[in-house]
Amino acid sequence: MTDEELMAFALAEARAAGRRGDVPVGAVVARGGRVLAGAGNEREASGDPTAHAEVLALRRAAAVLGTWRLTGCSVFTTLEPCPMCAGALVAARVERVSFAAFDPKAGACGSLYNLCVDPRLNHELVVESGIAAGEAGALLSDWFATRLRGKAVGGEAVDTGTIDI
Amino acid sequence: MTDEELMAFALAEARAAGRRGDVPVGAVVARGGRVLAGAGNEREASGDPTAHAEVLALRRAAAVLGTWRLTGCSVFTTLEPCPMCAGALVAARVERVSFAAFDPKAGACGSLYNLCVDPRLNHELVVESGIAAGEAGALLSDWFATRLRGKAVGGEAVDTGTIDI
Repeated sequence: MTDEELMAFALAEARAAGRRGDVPVGAVVARGGRVLAGAGNEREASGDPTAHAEVLALRRAAAVLGTWRLTGCSVFTTLEPCPMCAGALVAARVERVSFAAFDPKAGACGSLYNLCVDPRLNHELVVESGIAAGEAGALLSDWFATRLRGKAVGGEAVDTGTIDI
Repeated sequence: MTDEELMAFALAEARAAGRRGDVPVGAVVARGGRVLAGAGNEREASGDPTAHAEVLALRRAAAVLGTWRLTGCSVFTTLEPCPMCAGALVAARVERVSFAAFDPKAGACGSLYNLCVDPRLNHELVVESGIAAGEAGALLSDWFATRLRGKAVGGEAVDTGTIDI
């Protein structure tokens, strides 16, 4: 699969997350152009603060490979990883991350921090961005707009302090 | 329980991790002086790159409370959190982290980064250090010394690039 097709897979995971009430972020882990694992954000669905799409996809890929070292793997994610997720990419020894939309409020791959490119840490990875940025950003802004309208008419409250997670 | 007793609990988790072949780091999540959950590093045991003690303890505490928001909770960990774990503390809205030993190679609560005290992110927490620092540091250095001796006589290879994880 091409990088664009892998990001399309991540976008599908993001849309699925949004349908079940989570902020629509999705991620896939691939090696040699083949998908090892995919996940959408499940923080609300699972009640797990670490259940961001990237963390879940990394854990599932490790389970598939039978090792925590995701050598040679690439991660495609629809939103710039937060500090936790960027740290997880480093911890898993991922080779490359490609993200769609930037997250100016919490992004740790260029916006607020550059955790994946720090020679002081014991691993660095290639960071790329831009594929499907508009589509991923629109998915998030549309989701929040819908939720805010729901809140305005007495629906469930939503934390809009950050678009990450 | 006092802070010292909670850190002793975290140290017991660290020792248990070391006995099963993982780098000896432990963590507990407490609220109102009562332990909600504890965990040791399980990266090797589980093959999960995100299975650091702090991440596991946060996930277990969230399962106990039934929510990803660990409001009012304190985390006691035997080693300064890495970027992934510090990011997880922020994501979980933890109130306070107390760590024992500093990690100059990967620490993200003062050594290389200060991720838990960044007003740009959507949550900040109190960071403390010093309780049982000597004991936690000795536990790690003794563990690595033993493993390196094992390697020297033909034992299993070990990645000593960082003491975190």
